[in-house]
Amino acid sequence: MKIATEFSLDEISAVLARTPATLNALLRGLPDRWVLSNEGRGNEGKDTWSAFDIVGHLIVGERTDWMPRVRIILESGEARAFDPFDRFAQSRESQGKSLEQLLDEFASLRAENLAALRALNLRAEDFNRRGRHPALGVVTLSELLATWAVHDLTHLHQLSRVMAHQYRDAVGPWSAYLGVLHCTGHSA
Amino acid sequence: MKIATEFSLDEISAVLARTPATLNALLRGLPDRWVLSNEGRGNEGKDTWSAFDIVGHLIVGERTDWMPRVRIILESGEARAFDPFDRFAQSRESQGKSLEQLLDEFASLRAENLAALRALNLRAEDFNRRGRHPALGVVTLSELLATWAVHDLTHLHQLSRVMAHQYRDAVGPWSAYLGVLHCTGHSA
Repeated sequence: MKIATEFSLDEISAVLARTPATLNALLRGLPDRWVLSNEGRGNEGKDTWSAFDIVGHLIVGERTDWMPRVRIILESGEARAFDPFDRFAQSRESQGKSLEQLLDEFASLRAENLAALRALNLRAEDFNRRGRHPALGVVTLSELLATWAVHDLTHLHQLSRVMAHQYRDAVGPWSAYLGVLHCTGHSA
Repeated sequence: MKIATEFSLDEISAVLARTPATLNALLRGLPDRWVLSNEGRGNEGKDTWSAFDIVGHLIVGERTDWMPRVRIILESGEARAFDPFDRFAQSRESQGKSLEQLLDEFASLRAENLAALRALNLRAEDFNRRGRHPALGVVTLSELLATWAVHDLTHLHQLSRVMAHQYRDAVGPWSAYLGVLHCTGHSA
Protein backbone atom coordinates (compact mmCIF):
# COMPACT_ATOMS: atom_id res chain seq x y z
CA MET A 1 0.00 0.00 0.00
CA LYS A 2 2.28 2.78 -1.26
CA ILE A 3 -0.53 5.30 -0.96
CA ALA A 4 -1.12 4.64 2.73
CA THR A 5 2.48 5.39 3.65
CA GLU A 6 3.25 8.11 1.09
CA PHE A 7 0.00 10.01 1.18
CA SER A 8 -2.29 10.78 4.06
CA LEU A 9 -5.30 13.05 3.84
CA ASP A 10 -5.19 13.48 7.62
CA GLU A 11 -1.61 14.72 7.39
CA ILE A 12 -2.50 17.26 4.72
CA SER A 13 -5.68 18.35 6.47
CA ALA A 14 -3.68 18.90 9.68
CA VAL A 15 -1.69 21.62 7.92
CA LEU A 16 -4.62 23.11 6.02
CA ALA A 17 -6.72 23.33 9.18
CA ARG A 18 -4.01 25.26 11.05
CA THR A 19 -3.26 27.99 8.53
CA PRO A 20 -6.13 30.38 9.36
CA ALA A 21 -5.28 30.41 13.08
CA THR A 22 -1.58 30.77 12.27
CA LEU A 23 -2.17 33.83 10.08
CA ASN A 24 -4.57 35.22 12.64
CA ALA A 25 -2.00 34.90 15.44
CA LEU A 26 0.74 36.37 13.26
CA LEU A 27 -1.14 39.27 11.66
CA ARG A 28 -4.28 40.41 13.48
CA GLY A 29 -3.78 43.76 15.14
CA LEU A 30 -0.24 44.34 13.85
CA PRO A 31 0.67 47.99 13.13
CA ASP A 32 -0.03 48.87 9.47
CA ARG A 33 3.70 49.19 8.78
CA TRP A 34 3.98 45.39 8.83
CA VAL A 35 0.94 44.45 6.79
CA LEU A 36 -0.24 47.11 4.31
CA SER A 37 1.41 48.49 1.19
CA ASN A 38 1.89 52.19 1.79
CA GLU A 39 4.48 54.50 0.24
CA GLY A 40 7.05 51.79 -0.33
CA ARG A 41 6.42 50.02 2.95
CA GLY A 42 4.65 46.80 3.84
CA ASN A 43 5.74 44.90 0.72
CA GLU A 44 9.04 44.19 -1.05
CA GLY A 45 8.84 47.01 -3.59
CA LYS A 46 6.83 47.88 -6.69
CA ASP A 47 4.35 45.20 -7.78
CA THR A 48 5.11 42.95 -4.81
CA TRP A 49 2.64 41.77 -2.20
CA SER A 50 1.92 42.90 1.33
CA ALA A 51 0.42 40.65 4.01
CA PHE A 52 -2.97 42.11 3.03
CA ASP A 53 -2.46 41.01 -0.59
CA ILE A 54 -1.28 37.54 0.47
CA VAL A 55 -4.33 36.83 2.63
CA GLY A 56 -6.51 38.12 -0.22
CA HIS A 57 -4.78 35.68 -2.60
CA LEU A 58 -5.40 32.77 -0.20
CA ILE A 59 -9.10 33.70 -0.15
CA VAL A 60 -9.27 33.64 -3.95
CA GLY A 61 -7.68 30.16 -3.87
CA GLU A 62 -10.35 28.93 -1.47
CA ARG A 63 -13.10 30.32 -3.69
CA THR A 64 -11.88 29.45 -7.16
CA ASP A 65 -8.97 27.05 -7.14
CA TRP A 66 -8.58 24.13 -4.75
CA MET A 67 -11.98 22.53 -4.25
CA PRO A 68 -13.18 23.41 -7.77
CA ARG A 69 -10.12 21.54 -9.10
CA VAL A 70 -10.80 18.56 -6.82
CA ARG A 71 -14.31 18.41 -8.29
CA ILE A 72 -13.08 18.73 -11.89
CA ILE A 73 -10.76 15.74 -11.34
CA LEU A 74 -13.53 13.65 -9.79
CA GLU A 75 -16.13 14.61 -12.39
CA SER A 76 -14.14 14.95 -15.63
CA GLY A 77 -10.64 13.56 -15.07
CA GLU A 78 -8.21 14.62 -17.78
CA ALA A 79 -11.00 15.47 -20.18
CA ARG A 80 -11.38 19.01 -18.83
CA ALA A 81 -8.39 21.21 -17.98
CA PHE A 82 -8.56 23.23 -14.77
CA ASP A 83 -9.51 26.88 -15.03
CA PRO A 84 -6.35 28.99 -14.65
CA PHE A 85 -5.75 30.50 -11.19
CA ASP A 86 -6.14 34.29 -11.37
CA ARG A 87 -3.17 35.47 -9.33
CA PHE A 88 -4.32 39.08 -9.38
CA ALA A 89 -7.99 38.71 -8.52
CA GLN A 90 -7.37 39.74 -4.89
CA SER A 91 -6.66 43.37 -5.77
CA ARG A 92 -10.28 43.60 -6.94
CA GLU A 93 -11.88 41.32 -4.38
CA SER A 94 -10.14 42.69 -1.28
CA GLN A 95 -10.95 46.31 -2.07
CA GLY A 96 -12.47 48.23 0.83
CA LYS A 97 -11.93 45.41 3.32
CA SER A 98 -9.75 45.41 6.41
CA LEU A 99 -7.07 42.79 7.05
CA GLU A 100 -9.19 41.58 9.95
CA GLN A 101 -12.15 41.00 7.61
CA LEU A 102 -9.91 39.07 5.21
CA LEU A 103 -8.60 36.87 8.04
CA ASP A 104 -12.16 36.05 9.10
CA GLU A 105 -13.22 35.37 5.52
CA PHE A 106 -10.25 33.08 4.91
CA ALA A 107 -10.94 31.13 8.13
CA SER A 108 -14.56 30.57 7.27
CA LEU A 109 -13.91 29.57 3.63
CA ARG A 110 -11.13 27.17 4.67
CA ALA A 111 -13.39 25.52 7.27
CA GLU A 112 -16.15 25.10 4.66
CA ASN A 113 -13.72 23.65 2.14
CA LEU A 114 -12.24 21.15 4.60
CA ALA A 115 -15.75 20.03 5.54
CA ALA A 116 -16.60 19.63 1.84
CA LEU A 117 -13.38 17.65 1.28
CA ARG A 118 -14.19 15.27 4.14
CA ALA A 119 -17.75 14.89 2.85
CA LEU A 120 -16.37 13.47 -0.41
CA ASN A 121 -15.30 10.35 1.53
CA LEU A 122 -12.36 9.82 -0.79
CA ARG A 123 -10.99 6.27 -0.92
CA ALA A 124 -7.30 5.39 -1.24
CA GLU A 125 -7.62 4.71 -4.97
CA ASP A 126 -9.19 8.11 -5.62
CA PHE A 127 -5.91 9.85 -4.80
CA ASN A 128 -4.38 8.46 -7.99
CA ARG A 129 -7.11 9.93 -10.19
CA ARG A 130 -5.78 12.24 -12.84
CA GLY A 131 -6.62 15.72 -13.99
CA ARG A 132 -5.15 18.18 -16.43
CA HIS A 133 -3.44 21.41 -15.42
CA PRO A 134 -3.59 24.08 -18.17
CA ALA A 135 0.21 24.59 -18.08
CA LEU A 136 1.69 21.62 -16.19
CA GLY A 137 -0.22 18.83 -17.91
CA VAL A 138 -1.29 15.64 -16.16
CA VAL A 139 -1.46 15.81 -12.36
CA THR A 140 -3.04 13.57 -9.74
CA LEU A 141 -5.55 14.31 -7.00
CA SER A 142 -2.91 13.54 -4.36
CA GLU A 143 -0.56 16.07 -5.98
CA LEU A 144 -3.31 18.68 -5.97
CA LEU A 145 -4.04 18.13 -2.28
CA ALA A 146 -0.35 18.14 -1.31
CA THR A 147 0.06 21.36 -3.33
CA TRP A 148 -2.82 22.99 -1.46
CA ALA A 149 -0.90 22.47 1.81
CA VAL A 150 2.49 23.50 0.41
CA HIS A 151 0.85 26.56 -1.17
CA ASP A 152 -0.15 27.64 2.37
CA LEU A 153 3.46 27.12 3.45
CA THR A 154 4.88 29.01 0.48
CA HIS A 155 2.78 32.03 1.43
CA LEU A 156 3.73 31.75 5.10
CA HIS A 157 7.32 31.69 3.87
CA GLN A 158 6.63 34.80 1.76
CA LEU A 159 4.87 36.54 4.66
CA SER A 160 7.81 36.07 7.00
CA ARG A 161 10.10 37.39 4.26
CA VAL A 162 7.91 40.42 3.47
CA MET A 163 7.70 41.31 7.16
CA ALA A 164 11.45 40.86 7.69
CA HIS A 165 12.08 43.07 4.64
CA GLN A 166 10.59 46.02 6.56
CA TYR A 167 13.54 45.79 8.99
CA ARG A 168 16.28 44.94 6.50
CA ASP A 169 18.18 48.12 7.44
CA ALA A 170 17.14 48.29 11.09
CA VAL A 171 19.07 45.11 11.99
CA GLY A 172 22.42 46.66 10.97
CA PRO A 173 25.31 44.18 10.66
CA TRP A 174 23.15 41.26 11.91
CA SER A 175 21.70 41.13 8.38
CA ALA A 176 24.51 38.70 7.52
CA TYR A 177 23.14 36.11 9.96
CA LEU A 178 19.45 36.37 9.07
CA GLY A 179 18.63 33.95 6.27
CA VAL A 180 15.17 35.42 5.67
CA LEU A 181 16.82 38.63 4.41
CA HIS A 182 18.69 36.63 1.75
CA CYS A 183 15.87 34.47 0.45
CA THR A 184 15.53 34.29 -3.29
CA GLY A 185 12.77 31.68 -3.33
CA HIS A 186 9.96 33.92 -4.39
CA SER A 187 6.52 32.39 -4.62
CA ALA A 188 5.12 32.15 -8.10
CA MET B 1 13.55 62.86 15.46
CA LYS B 2 14.93 60.13 13.20
CA ILE B 3 14.52 57.57 15.97
CA ALA B 4 10.82 58.18 16.41
CA THR B 5 10.04 57.48 12.75
CA GLU B 6 12.66 54.83 12.03
CA PHE B 7 12.49 52.85 15.23
CA SER B 8 9.52 51.98 17.37
CA LEU B 9 9.66 49.66 20.34
CA ASP B 10 5.90 49.14 20.04
CA GLU B 11 6.31 48.00 16.44
CA ILE B 12 9.00 45.49 17.40
CA SER B 13 7.12 44.28 20.48
CA ALA B 14 4.03 43.72 18.33
CA VAL B 15 5.94 41.09 16.36
CA LEU B 16 7.74 39.58 19.34
CA ALA B 17 4.49 39.23 21.28
CA ARG B 18 2.78 37.34 18.44
CA THR B 19 5.40 34.67 17.75
CA PRO B 20 4.49 32.20 20.53
CA ALA B 21 0.82 32.10 19.51
CA THR B 22 1.80 31.85 15.84
CA LEU B 23 4.03 28.82 16.47
CA ASN B 24 1.39 27.32 18.72
CA ALA B 25 -1.29 27.63 16.03
CA LEU B 26 1.05 26.27 13.36
CA LEU B 27 2.62 23.37 15.25
CA ARG B 28 0.68 22.13 18.27
CA GLY B 29 -0.87 18.73 17.64
CA LEU B 30 0.59 18.27 14.15
CA PRO B 31 1.44 14.67 13.18
CA ASP B 32 5.08 13.85 14.06
CA ARG B 33 5.94 13.63 10.36
CA TRP B 34 5.82 17.42 10.14
CA VAL B 35 7.71 18.35 13.28
CA LEU B 36 10.18 15.72 14.54
CA SER B 37 13.41 14.44 13.00
CA ASN B 38 12.92 10.74 12.41
CA GLU B 39 14.63 8.51 9.87
CA GLY B 40 15.28 11.29 7.38
CA ARG B 41 11.92 12.98 7.87
CA GLY B 42 10.88 16.13 9.68
CA ASN B 43 13.99 18.11 8.78
CA GLU B 44 15.90 18.93 5.59
CA GLY B 45 18.51 16.17 5.85
CA LYS B 46 21.51 15.31 7.99
CA ASP B 47 22.44 17.96 10.58
CA THR B 48 19.46 20.18 9.72
CA TRP B 49 16.72 21.26 12.08
CA SER B 50 13.17 20.03 12.61
CA ALA B 51 10.37 22.21 14.02
CA PHE B 52 11.23 20.69 17.43
CA ASP B 53 14.83 21.87 17.11
CA ILE B 54 13.76 25.34 15.96
CA VAL B 55 11.44 25.93 18.92
CA GLY B 56 14.22 24.66 21.21
CA HIS B 57 16.60 27.18 19.64
CA LEU B 58 14.13 30.03 20.20
CA ILE B 59 13.92 29.02 23.88
CA VAL B 60 17.71 29.16 24.24
CA GLY B 61 17.63 32.65 22.72
CA GLU B 62 15.07 33.78 25.30
CA ARG B 63 17.19 32.38 28.13
CA THR B 64 20.69 33.36 27.10
CA ASP B 65 20.75 35.81 24.23
CA TRP B 66 18.33 38.69 23.79
CA MET B 67 17.63 40.21 27.19
CA PRO B 68 21.11 39.37 28.54
CA ARG B 69 22.54 41.33 25.59
CA VAL B 70 20.17 44.25 26.21
CA ARG B 71 21.47 44.35 29.80
CA ILE B 72 25.12 44.14 28.73
CA ILE B 73 24.61 47.17 26.45
CA LEU B 74 22.89 49.17 29.19
CA GLU B 75 25.40 48.21 31.89
CA SER B 76 28.72 47.95 30.04
CA GLY B 77 28.28 49.41 26.56
CA GLU B 78 31.12 48.45 24.23
CA ALA B 79 33.42 47.61 27.14
CA ARG B 80 32.13 44.04 27.35
CA ALA B 81 31.48 41.89 24.29
CA PHE B 82 28.30 39.79 24.26
CA ASP B 83 28.61 36.12 25.14
CA PRO B 84 28.42 34.09 21.91
CA PHE B 85 25.02 32.52 21.13
CA ASP B 86 25.29 28.73 21.44
CA ARG B 87 23.42 27.57 18.36
CA PHE B 88 23.49 23.93 19.43
CA ALA B 89 22.42 24.20 23.08
CA GLN B 90 18.87 23.12 22.25
CA SER B 91 19.85 19.52 21.51
CA ARG B 92 20.87 19.25 25.18
CA GLU B 93 18.18 21.44 26.70
CA SER B 94 15.20 20.04 24.78
CA GLN B 95 16.04 16.42 25.56
CA GLY B 96 13.12 14.39 26.89
CA LYS B 97 10.60 17.17 26.31
CA SER B 98 7.61 17.16 23.97
CA LEU B 99 7.04 19.82 21.31
CA GLU B 100 4.02 20.93 23.33
CA GLN B 101 6.19 21.49 26.41
CA LEU B 102 8.64 23.52 24.32
CA LEU B 103 5.84 25.68 22.93
CA ASP B 104 4.59 26.41 26.46
CA GLU B 105 8.10 27.14 27.69
CA PHE B 106 8.80 29.51 24.80
CA ALA B 107 5.51 31.36 25.37
CA SER B 108 6.19 31.87 29.05
CA LEU B 109 9.82 32.96 28.58
CA ARG B 110 8.86 35.40 25.83
CA ALA B 111 6.12 36.95 27.99
CA GLU B 112 8.59 37.36 30.86
CA ASN B 113 11.19 38.93 28.59
CA LEU B 114 8.75 41.39 27.05
CA ALA B 115 7.62 42.41 30.54
CA ALA B 116 11.27 42.87 31.57
CA LEU B 117 11.93 44.94 28.42
CA ARG B 118 8.98 47.22 29.15
CA ALA B 119 10.10 47.56 32.77
CA LEU B 120 13.39 49.09 31.58
CA ASN B 121 11.43 52.18 30.48
CA LEU B 122 13.86 52.83 27.66
CA ARG B 123 14.00 56.42 26.37
CA ALA B 124 14.46 57.37 22.72
CA GLU B 125 18.17 58.14 23.24
CA ASP B 126 18.82 54.70 24.78
CA PHE B 127 18.18 53.01 21.42
CA ASN B 128 21.41 54.51 20.07
CA ARG B 129 23.51 53.04 22.88
CA ARG B 130 26.26 50.82 21.61
CA GLY B 131 27.45 47.34 22.45
CA ARG B 132 30.02 44.96 21.04
CA HIS B 133 29.15 41.76 19.21
CA PRO B 134 31.95 39.14 19.43
CA ALA B 135 32.04 38.70 15.64
CA LEU B 136 30.17 41.67 14.12
CA GLY B 137 31.74 44.45 16.17
CA VAL B 138 29.86 47.57 17.23
CA VAL B 139 26.07 47.33 17.20
CA THR B 140 23.32 49.48 18.72
CA LEU B 141 20.49 48.62 21.07
CA SER B 142 17.96 49.39 18.32
CA GLU B 143 19.75 46.95 15.99
CA LEU B 144 19.66 44.29 18.70
CA LEU B 145 15.93 44.73 19.26
CA ALA B 146 15.14 44.78 15.52
CA THR B 147 17.24 41.62 15.14
CA TRP B 148 15.29 39.89 17.90
CA ALA B 149 12.09 40.38 15.84
CA VAL B 150 13.67 39.46 12.50
CA HIS B 151 15.23 36.40 14.15
CA ASP B 152 11.69 35.21 14.95
CA LEU B 153 10.76 35.80 11.32
CA THR B 154 13.84 33.99 9.98
CA HIS B 155 12.85 30.93 11.97
CA LEU B 156 9.23 31.15 10.85
CA HIS B 157 10.64 31.31 7.34
CA GLN B 158 12.79 28.24 8.06
CA LEU B 159 9.84 26.39 9.64
CA SER B 160 7.62 26.87 6.60
CA ARG B 161 10.50 25.65 4.42
CA VAL B 162 11.25 22.59 6.58
CA MET B 163 7.58 21.63 6.60
CA ALA B 164 7.20 22.14 2.84
CA HIS B 165 10.33 20.01 2.30
CA GLN B 166 8.41 17.00 3.64
CA TYR B 167 6.13 17.22 0.59
CA ARG B 168 8.71 18.20 -2.02
CA ASP B 169 7.94 15.05 -4.04
CA ALA B 170 4.25 14.77 -3.17
CA VAL B 171 3.38 17.97 -5.07
CA GLY B 172 4.58 16.52 -8.40
CA PRO B 173 4.97 19.08 -11.22
CA TRP B 174 3.57 21.92 -9.06
CA SER B 175 7.00 22.09 -7.45
CA ALA B 176 7.94 24.59 -10.17
CA TYR B 177 5.39 27.10 -8.85
CA LEU B 178 6.11 26.79 -5.12
CA GLY B 179 8.82 29.24 -4.13
CA VAL B 180 9.29 27.71 -0.68
CA LEU B 181 10.69 24.56 -2.33
CA HIS B 182 13.39 26.64 -4.03
CA CYS B 183 14.50 28.79 -1.10
CA THR B 184 18.22 29.02 -0.58
CA GLY B 185 18.07 31.58 2.22
CA HIS B 186 19.05 29.29 5.04
CA SER B 187 19.08 30.78 8.51
CA ALA B 188 22.47 31.04 10.10
